[in-house]
Amino acid sequence: MEVIQSVALLRSTLQQKKSGIGASLKAPVGFVPTMGYLHEGHLSLIKAAREASEIVVLSIFVNPLQFGPTEDLDRYPRDTERDLKLAEEAGVDIVFLPQVEEMYPGPVKTTVSVSGITSVLCGASRPVHFDGVTTVVAKLLNIVQPDKAFFGLKDAQQVAVVSQMVQDLNMNVDIVACPILREEDGLAMSSRNVFLSKDEREQALVLSRSLKAAEAWVREHASFRAEDLRGAVKAVIEEAPLADIDYVEVLTYPQLEQPEAVEAGVPVRLIVALAVKFGATRLIDNTILTLGK
Amino acid sequence: MEVIQSVALLRSTLQQKKSGIGASLKAPVGFVPTMGYLHEGHLSLIKAAREASEIVVLSIFVNPLQFGPTEDLDRYPRDTERDLKLAEEAGVDIVFLPQVEEMYPGPVKTTVSVSGITSVLCGASRPVHFDGVTTVVAKLLNIVQPDKAFFGLKDAQQVAVVSQMVQDLNMNVDIVACPILREEDGLAMSSRNVFLSKDEREQALVLSRSLKAAEAWVREHASFRAEDLRGAVKAVIEEAPLADIDYVEVLTYPQLEQPEAVEAGVPVRLIVALAVKFGATRLIDNTILTLGK
Repeated sequence: MEVIQSVALLRSTLQQKKSGIGASLKAPVGFVPTMGYLHEGHLSLIKAAREASEIVVLSIFVNPLQFGPTEDLDRYPRDTERDLKLAEEAGVDIVFLPQVEEMYPGPVKTTVSVSGITSVLCGASRPVHFDGVTTVVAKLLNIVQPDKAFFGLKDAQQVAVVSQMVQDLNMNVDIVACPILREEDGLAMSSRNVFLSKDEREQALVLSRSLKAAEAWVREHASFRAEDLRGAVKAVIEEAPLADIDYVEVLTYPQLEQPEAVEAGVPVRLIVALAVKFGATRLIDNTILTLGK
Repeated sequence: MEVIQSVALLRSTLQQKKSGIGASLKAPVGFVPTMGYLHEGHLSLIKAAREASEIVVLSIFVNPLQFGPTEDLDRYPRDTERDLKLAEEAGVDIVFLPQVEEMYPGPVKTTVSVSGITSVLCGASRPVHFDGVTTVVAKLLNIVQPDKAFFGLKDAQQVAVVSQMVQDLNMNVDIVACPILREEDGLAMSSRNVFLSKDEREQALVLSRSLKAAEAWVREHASFRAEDLRGAVKAVIEEAPLADIDYVEVLTYPQLEQPEAVEAGVPVRLIVALAVKFGATRLIDNTILTLGK
C-alpha cells in the first residue's frame, strides 16, 4: 500500500499503476473518499471498491470547507495511524492524504454548488455544508479520476447531491451508493459515535428503532400522508429524554421533495431522514422505503 | 472529420481514437471550445491545437446559460454548415455539436462559480455570464477530457476565470491562451462583427487604436497611476461619436485587481480591457502590458 500526500505524485503513481493493468472486467480505479477515523461502514465501502476495481484509492481528508464556523471541525476525530493500518488490512492500494495547504492554497474562489436538494434536511441546518462537500468531491474526483466512487447511504442526501453534481457536470464516474452499516444493537456506524456518553449511546438506539418503526408503520398503511408517518417516527424519538431533534423528514428520494399523499399501488420511493443531537453530538440516520410496487 | 452530437458517442469515439495513438511528444487530445460562426481567430486556436495534439476536438455550442435574459442569445450568429467546412479544412478530427436538450435536460441545479475576478469587467455588466461560462466549460472539459484546451485572449477575463477554475478544482488540463487575431485594419476578430453597419464598423477601429495608444503611452510613462492610463484610452475612444462605452479598465492580470501606482522598474502585468457598444453590438478588446522588466 502506498501513502501519498501530493496531488502530482498521486497522479503519476496512478498513471503508472493503470498502465500495468491487463484486460479485466473490473473498473480500473475505484475510489473511496472519507474524512478518516475509519469504522466498519468505511471498510464496507472499501470492500465494495475492492471487488469492483483493479486499483483501490482511499482518501482521508477532513475538509474544512464543509464545516460551518460553529461546527466541530477541530473536534472531528482523527487517527491516521490506525486508519492506515485498517486500510492496508482492507486491501487499499493507495491512501491519498491531501494537505489543506495544497487543497486550499488561498481563499476559495471556485465553488461547485447544487441547488434545490441541498436546501432541505442537513442543508437547512448546515447552510454552507453541501457547497463544501460538492466542491471538495469535485476536486477529489478530478485528482483521482476514478471509474467508480463509493459513498455510504448513511448520508443519503450527500449521495443524492453528489450524484446530481456528477450528472449535471458530465463527470465521467459512476457513483455507487452502499448500504448503511449498523452496530449489533442497531446504531448506525459513525465516526462521531465515540463522542457519546454511556447514557447518550444507550438512548441513541432510539434512532434506528424509530426507523424500524417507520418500516413497520408503512407495512400497515397502504395509503397515508407523509406527515402522519413523520409524526409516528417523531413520537418514537421523543421517548428518549436526551434526544434533541434537529429534523425528522419524509421526502421523495433522490429528489428530496415533499411527497404527495401516498396511495396504495402507486410506486414511490421515500426517505425517512433524521438528525438528532445527543449532548453536543449530532447524529444522522435514515431509511429508504420503496413503496407501491 | 467526424461530426458527433451525443455525449456517449463522443466519449466512445475519443476512447477508440486515443487507443490508436502510438508514442508521441504531442498531447493526446487538444480541445477548442467555441460558440461557432468561426472566424480567423477560431482557426488560429485550431491551428495551435493541431500543432500540439494528436486528436483535435472542436465544440460548437451557443450556451444559453451564459446569456442574460436581455442579451443576444437568439440573435447570436449561427452557420453550422460553413463552420463544418472551415473545421475540416483546418484539420479538426472531431466536431462536437452538443444539443441543448442533452446539455441541460432540466432546470440547472449544479453551478460552478468563480468569485472575485468575475465581478469586474464583463462580469460587472453581465452578472450571470461567467457562472454560465464556467459551468459549461466544466461540463465540456469533463465530456472531452482533453489534455490541452485552447482559448483566445480576446476574452482575456474568460481565460483568467477558466484558468482559476481549472486550478481550484484540480482539473487535469492545460489551459492554453492564444493571442488576439485582428483584421488588417486592427479590429479584433469577433463573430459579432457581422452585426456592425458600415459606419459602426469604421468607427469601431477606435478600439484597437485606443489600445495601440495605451501601448505607446506606457512607453512614455515609466511611472504612472492606472487612472491616468485609463483616461488616455477613454479619450481616444470618445473621439468616435457612435462609441457607447460600457467600461474601460486598467487592472492587474490575471488577478484582475486594481493596481497600485505603477513604478519604473517594478515588474507588473496590466490588462487594458474595454467593452464598447456600437448600436446594439457590444464589442470587447484588450491588450496585456508587461511592464517594469
